[in-house]
Amino acid sequence: MSNKMWGGRFATGPDAIMEEINASIDYDKRFHTQDIAGSKAHAEMLAKVGILTQEDKDAIISGLDQVHDEIAAGTFTFSRALEDIHMNVEARLKEIIGEPAGRLHTARSRNDQVATDFKLYVRDCIDTFVTQIQTLQLAMVERAEEHADSVMPGFTHLQSAQPVTFGHHMMAYVEMLGRDVGRFQDARKRLNESPLGSAALAGTSFPIDREMTAEALGFDRPTANSLDAVSDRDFVLETLSAASLCAMHLSRLSEELVIWSTAQFRFVRLSDKFSTGSSIMPQKRNPDAAELIRAKIGRITGALVSLMTVMKGLPLAYSKDMQEDKEVSFDAFDSLSLSLAAMTGMIKDLQVNKDAMSDAAGAGFATATDLADWLVREANVPFRDAHHITGSAVARAEEKGCDLAGLTIEDFKEIDQRIDARVFKVLTVEDSVKSRTSFGGTSPANVKTAAAIWRDRLTSA
Amino acid sequence: MSNKMWGGRFATGPDAIMEEINASIDYDKRFHTQDIAGSKAHAEMLAKVGILTQEDKDAIISGLDQVHDEIAAGTFTFSRALEDIHMNVEARLKEIIGEPAGRLHTARSRNDQVATDFKLYVRDCIDTFVTQIQTLQLAMVERAEEHADSVMPGFTHLQSAQPVTFGHHMMAYVEMLGRDVGRFQDARKRLNESPLGSAALAGTSFPIDREMTAEALGFDRPTANSLDAVSDRDFVLETLSAASLCAMHLSRLSEELVIWSTAQFRFVRLSDKFSTGSSIMPQKRNPDAAELIRAKIGRITGALVSLMTVMKGLPLAYSKDMQEDKEVSFDAFDSLSLSLAAMTGMIKDLQVNKDAMSDAAGAGFATATDLADWLVREANVPFRDAHHITGSAVARAEEKGCDLAGLTIEDFKEIDQRIDARVFKVLTVEDSVKSRTSFGGTSPANVKTAAAIWRDRLTSA
Amino acid sequence: MSNKMWGGRFATGPDAIMEEINASIDYDKRFHTQDIAGSKAHAEMLAKVGILTQEDKDAIISGLDQVHDEIAAGTFTFSRALEDIHMNVEARLKEIIGEPAGRLHTARSRNDQVATDFKLYVRDCIDTFVTQIQTLQLAMVERAEEHADSVMPGFTHLQSAQPVTFGHHMMAYVEMLGRDVGRFQDARKRLNESPLGSAALAGTSFPIDREMTAEALGFDRPTANSLDAVSDRDFVLETLSAASLCAMHLSRLSEELVIWSTAQFRFVRLSDKFSTGSSIMPQKRNPDAAELIRAKIGRITGALVSLMTVMKGLPLAYSKDMQEDKEVSFDAFDSLSLSLAAMTGMIKDLQVNKDAMSDAAGAGFATATDLADWLVREANVPFRDAHHITGSAVARAEEKGCDLAGLTIEDFKEIDQRIDARVFKVLTVEDSVKSRTSFGGTSPANVKTAAAIWRDRLTSA
Amino acid sequence: MSNKMWGGRFATGPDAIMEEINASIDYDKRFHTQDIAGSKAHAEMLAKVGILTQEDKDAIISGLDQVHDEIAAGTFTFSRALEDIHMNVEARLKEIIGEPAGRLHTARSRNDQVATDFKLYVRDCIDTFVTQIQTLQLAMVERAEEHADSVMPGFTHLQSAQPVTFGHHMMAYVEMLGRDVGRFQDARKRLNESPLGSAALAGTSFPIDREMTAEALGFDRPTANSLDAVSDRDFVLETLSAASLCAMHLSRLSEELVIWSTAQFRFVRLSDKFSTGSSIMPQKRNPDAAELIRAKIGRITGALVSLMTVMKGLPLAYSKDMQEDKEVSFDAFDSLSLSLAAMTGMIKDLQVNKDAMSDAAGAGFATATDLADWLVREANVPFRDAHHITGSAVARAEEKGCDLAGLTIEDFKEIDQRIDARVFKVLTVEDSVKSRTSFGGTSPANVKTAAAIWRDRLTSA
Repeated sequence: MSNKMWGGRFATGPDAIMEEINASIDYDKRFHTQDIAGSKAHAEMLAKVGILTQEDKDAIISGLDQVHDEIAAGTFTFSRALEDIHMNVEARLKEIIGEPAGRLHTARSRNDQVATDFKLYVRDCIDTFVTQIQTLQLAMVERAEEHADSVMPGFTHLQSAQPVTFGHHMMAYVEMLGRDVGRFQDARKRLNESPLGSAALAGTSFPIDREMTAEALGFDRPTANSLDAVSDRDFVLETLSAASLCAMHLSRLSEELVIWSTAQFRFVRLSDKFSTGSSIMPQKRNPDAAELIRAKIGRITGALVSLMTVMKGLPLAYSKDMQEDKEVSFDAFDSLSLSLAAMTGMIKDLQVNKDAMSDAAGAGFATATDLADWLVREANVPFRDAHHITGSAVARAEEKGCDLAGLTIEDFKEIDQRIDARVFKVLTVEDSVKSRTSFGGTSPANVKTAAAIWRDRLTSA
Repeated sequence: MSNKMWGGRFATGPDAIMEEINASIDYDKRFHTQDIAGSKAHAEMLAKVGILTQEDKDAIISGLDQVHDEIAAGTFTFSRALEDIHMNVEARLKEIIGEPAGRLHTARSRNDQVATDFKLYVRDCIDTFVTQIQTLQLAMVERAEEHADSVMPGFTHLQSAQPVTFGHHMMAYVEMLGRDVGRFQDARKRLNESPLGSAALAGTSFPIDREMTAEALGFDRPTANSLDAVSDRDFVLETLSAASLCAMHLSRLSEELVIWSTAQFRFVRLSDKFSTGSSIMPQKRNPDAAELIRAKIGRITGALVSLMTVMKGLPLAYSKDMQEDKEVSFDAFDSLSLSLAAMTGMIKDLQVNKDAMSDAAGAGFATATDLADWLVREANVPFRDAHHITGSAVARAEEKGCDLAGLTIEDFKEIDQRIDARVFKVLTVEDSVKSRTSFGGTSPANVKTAAAIWRDRLTSA
Repeated sequence: MSNKMWGGRFATGPDAIMEEINASIDYDKRFHTQDIAGSKAHAEMLAKVGILTQEDKDAIISGLDQVHDEIAAGTFTFSRALEDIHMNVEARLKEIIGEPAGRLHTARSRNDQVATDFKLYVRDCIDTFVTQIQTLQLAMVERAEEHADSVMPGFTHLQSAQPVTFGHHMMAYVEMLGRDVGRFQDARKRLNESPLGSAALAGTSFPIDREMTAEALGFDRPTANSLDAVSDRDFVLETLSAASLCAMHLSRLSEELVIWSTAQFRFVRLSDKFSTGSSIMPQKRNPDAAELIRAKIGRITGALVSLMTVMKGLPLAYSKDMQEDKEVSFDAFDSLSLSLAAMTGMIKDLQVNKDAMSDAAGAGFATATDLADWLVREANVPFRDAHHITGSAVARAEEKGCDLAGLTIEDFKEIDQRIDARVFKVLTVEDSVKSRTSFGGTSPANVKTAAAIWRDRLTSA
Repeated sequence: MSNKMWGGRFATGPDAIMEEINASIDYDKRFHTQDIAGSKAHAEMLAKVGILTQEDKDAIISGLDQVHDEIAAGTFTFSRALEDIHMNVEARLKEIIGEPAGRLHTARSRNDQVATDFKLYVRDCIDTFVTQIQTLQLAMVERAEEHADSVMPGFTHLQSAQPVTFGHHMMAYVEMLGRDVGRFQDARKRLNESPLGSAALAGTSFPIDREMTAEALGFDRPTANSLDAVSDRDFVLETLSAASLCAMHLSRLSEELVIWSTAQFRFVRLSDKFSTGSSIMPQKRNPDAAELIRAKIGRITGALVSLMTVMKGLPLAYSKDMQEDKEVSFDAFDSLSLSLAAMTGMIKDLQVNKDAMSDAAGAGFATATDLADWLVREANVPFRDAHHITGSAVARAEEKGCDLAGLTIEDFKEIDQRIDARVFKVLTVEDSVKSRTSFGGTSPANVKTAAAIWRDRLTSA
């Protein structure tokens, strides 16, 4: 925006301003497929119940197909004066088939039409997201299988706390994404009621068959209340909420990828395709894609806030405010789809530096908890005493400049007689992760089982 | 906050600041019931798998019961130095039963403990919301039955568009609230996995039985990945999203109540209990409760934004940032519960001014659409011609200073010969709403059917 | 977005995904004027300090002018492979002038360059907003002058509380908008430091003159810290905050216009240019523009949330996340500008229905407060007694079916002997508003004075 | 919240619900100091203009002082039935002084009273923030002076890009916080107009002196429009916006502290006071305070969203929705104040690991840019050729396993004859930072100058 641009545009006066703020065709043309599908279903139904003649219906269907072809071919001229996709399509239909075009709008209005179009569109988005998420999950499952026993530090507060495996870490995200799929599927189930035939807001006196149009468009049933049907944007808000949560998950993994890619961590190396380098600093590898995905949660949550704010306090039924639902949603949905695609590419190409991870996992007496647990479990030492003994062992190791596994059995005996040689089975990071066999724990066997279950779910779906 | 207050508090130095920012007991004491239930389930399980002796277990259970009684009785002293509910309970348990208290924390950590507590708490909130929403729905169904044929203007753009019934309007909200219930139930289903036994982040080497604790606490199953289990706050975010949508619906109805209560509309009169008056202006009746409910969406959406922002970009597993999840959620959940209670009270007590609504519904030639539809339907006039003819009829009525039903059959014949006396069956607002018999349309018969279906659902649930 | 579209695009693999997520040229081409201005200033400076020869500098300046002309003429081909506006411009410059183009990037980087471009752009937006707001204020001042004594109800809780004038109501918005201007001007003042010459993040060893480029670009001074300069997006966030507040003000006025346009209020009539009608319902006049403006706060606040979320927790200095700053901001700024233009048009064209307003102002014993105040002021009756007496007068008026001014002096005397005939000077709505002469009160004289002050400010600016 | 709690509370019926949603005394009692100060100023003014007698005024002032003392001493009993702070104070005043208490409310209403209280409160908060921020800035300046030449990696994308100094990094935050102070001061300036005397919404017919009360309360002037004065919450929103930005800055530094505290970075060590450890893992040091500060931006931005949502679309003048302004703001302001206090403590106590920083700064050929710049600057090599030559030098160093400073002059000559021995002056990280002497660049001399300027500003303020 520059002074000149707006000044110039608005200098032409109120008409230009009103067209600018009012016309939606610039963005709702995205609905052309959905709009034409809805009109075809409506025409078939009108014919079946006797409101349209067979001839008129055939003309309409054939004309709508032509309109769709023109749009697909890029030869259609969208007109702002015609405001929106509905009127653009109908006006062109009239040019093509003449008078019968005027009969198509019987027993419907733009209010139920736009609700139908948008629901169909959001449903398509949800289906895309589910497919994309599952593709990402499968990529993660593959990396988990490959790294079921690759040890890395398990962090709390970004401080190494206990060893885990990289496979287990991947599977944590598979779980999160599984919930995302569930949310999208629930949103889909809830949105899948057809508003078509609710007309302007009160229903209609024409003997229409809403079950028929609902079925033709893949809806489970028609909506039960006409006022609600044209006032409702829950389906967008719920899908944006689910998208925000999914983007949040991706932001967490992105943050990890950024940190893991540092010279200090070196846990992973992103492929060239998803990072950018420096012509003169060969080690510098900027994780651009990860950073951009990390940021996308901003736009998606921002879109949710936008639409929630718009809907706040709107009286029934349709208000023009609701036209503000589209641009922010489109942007949010595009952003999520793009993020999922990029994350999938990154995960597939990720080079995992097992040595760096393993070294980090072993530093800082990361198996101290294992020693304490061993004392409780195998030597029946009370929990609190176990912690005290472990503290002494760590202190001894610090003195000797070794890790816990580097202590001798004599060292241990001196600290507490109850310790015996079996203790060495829990002091390496490999032993530590192997021992975490509780359900959901990080043991390689658990990871393999979890990966197999998910692989089965994802490939049989 | 004043300079003095903070200055005074912080003058005592870093320890006071750290306690102030770090301690959560001031608000997480809300979890005491959940925390103690979780500990009891954990103790029973530890005993069953042989980690605790029967005696220790019995002492723990009995001690926990005593702690709970003390808290319920208000005799428990919460300590900030002990930071959180978990440590407050455990410290008191130790005072009561001594050494065995130290064995309770085996094979768990505060990370899985707080996740368990919070899930149980959110689950309770959801159950409360569902009950409250259904109570509100039932109140609306009752008003809908009572006003199935009370005509009011159906608005688009807050302009009267077509007549509807007040019952139909009520049922629109019943539908919205039905989706809210669905969202809460889906969120409940998804959260209902037990984190307990995930320990700090990696699971444990103790032979615990997570199925047993899950079942004891009413969870469907244990969570499948320990890292995810302690890092996850999806269940709060999803519940906040559902709460935001529900609050949005309430804000719309509140806005309507505010507008309908104006001297200009006079559609409804709020009961004295939910409004405030003026000692000297008897007509003034401020819809305070409706305004406050209208505003609550702000806090609830704000809470969602807060927590989404907190979770953005957090590496796995537990980070202290996640402690910021509680206060905003508590406030949001309280706000929704209070709003639902107040709205239910208002709807029950609402005095509906049928005459004012009916008069408004009839103004502005609100049945013009009915005339146009009649022409299409009964006289086979093309849609576009029908609109032209209707325009002429409206103009004639304006000239004569009457509404459409006030025209004579001669008036109509002069305008178009195809009109016959049957037309008078669609020109009054009562006829108009009766004619809207399409599925989901506003006809009184439809409203009664919809109300009966919902009454059945709500009372058999 | 449809399955096909994304599927098709992403089927081409990681390169397409990375280009899609990474390239900014689709939107940052908006910066072309700012980018070229910055490059010209940089080149002049490099020449002055001896880094560039005069010849090279002349070639660069002339080449940049040509690039600008090409973009202005629409003949420039933007390339996604070149990622952003900076590289698009530089690549074309190289085609035009050859080798010297490569010297332009000395002592700068894309990090300081984009910060400079964006600051210049936001500064232009702010200047536009200020002009637009002041134009709107002037339109309001004109309506206030015209309606300095047009009485309307002053509402609290949307209930008529005390009479005010329409002019006073207009002037309330002039005050709000005046604060908006102040916020934009403060934001401008704060942003007006030049990042140029901060280079990648550390400054440079070249002997550059940052004062010179700052001055050439209209900045007050160069930024004081290079790390901050390239990491800072405060200027966008602060401007978005100011824009959100301004949009909030517009949403309030829009809500009023929507309510005032109802058949029930009929306080105003929006011009045809900013509303849409119904071909068959002549009274129906949908306030589309007002509704759309009411909604715009959603997008603008959403943009603020988006960028705040993006910036949360970003380490210094530049991170790629920051590229997400532009699209949401552009959309928000366009939305505000459009809203201001539309609101200005609506206010100018607004038809004010003085009779409807005046009638509404007089209903409901709206001057009861005036009677009570008269008793306190003129008859030295304590406040509480005054309220009691007023209540009796209102009751009497209700019985007689008149308003307070319709009571006789005998009626009043019967109620309280201290009332005398002077009381009639405060009982009409006209008298009421005239009496509110306290500073900032609604009296017509006050309104005229306030309007004159603002007219002077706005026209002398 | 539990079923029982709410069920129990609400079982008592509508009155309990209404009290719960309507009463504000639980939180607006925070305003007691401001409320009493406002009342005293109002009483003095009423006496001066002759509305109150001297005796009544004296009684009121003395009574108000007693109320204040009682509240300060904790002996005051707040009553929910009296709804808010205004009525609690006034009712107690009446108990103390009797009838004159009823005269205090002349020429004001709760609408202007609450606006005045809240403005005074926010002004106090702002003053606290400014002091706290400046204290934090001074702590940073001290660390900057101490570390003006401590080299650390300058990051872009969290990848080491060019060496900077820790002092320079500190000073970047000093700049950010300086803008925060500016924003708070601008907000203070803008809010500093007195609403008192605007009465309910229309001003008053009493001959009050609003200049006098404005001055007594430290306001610059009275507000100019009574409708605006009671409808305005801009001052809260603007302060919340400024607070969000400040919290964003703190979140960035907190993120850095978290990352720098990892075992992998080890750039800093947080003091025990602001971190928590592990009894058995001595290296583990959880940066709890930093994480909590990082999270606070969530609540503060959430509060901004809350209130913006509340204000969206509210008609003038006062609506009850506006009562929702307080709780979220109080929470946000407390959060910021606490964050500032904690960050100041952390920065003061921070142990900086210069060796780890310096080592990291030197890795990855971080002075490659310096070599390229040297070639351009000293050897007149075109920029693009300089990059090519630098690339060869880096490759040679990689082969030899050394850094750039480890190459011999022969190595360089072989690569390009134009290189001479002066080049060694730019190849170490110390030389690199010293060379960045452009205004705002990272050279130690620059850092010292900037620190001195800020120290002067901060200590002379």
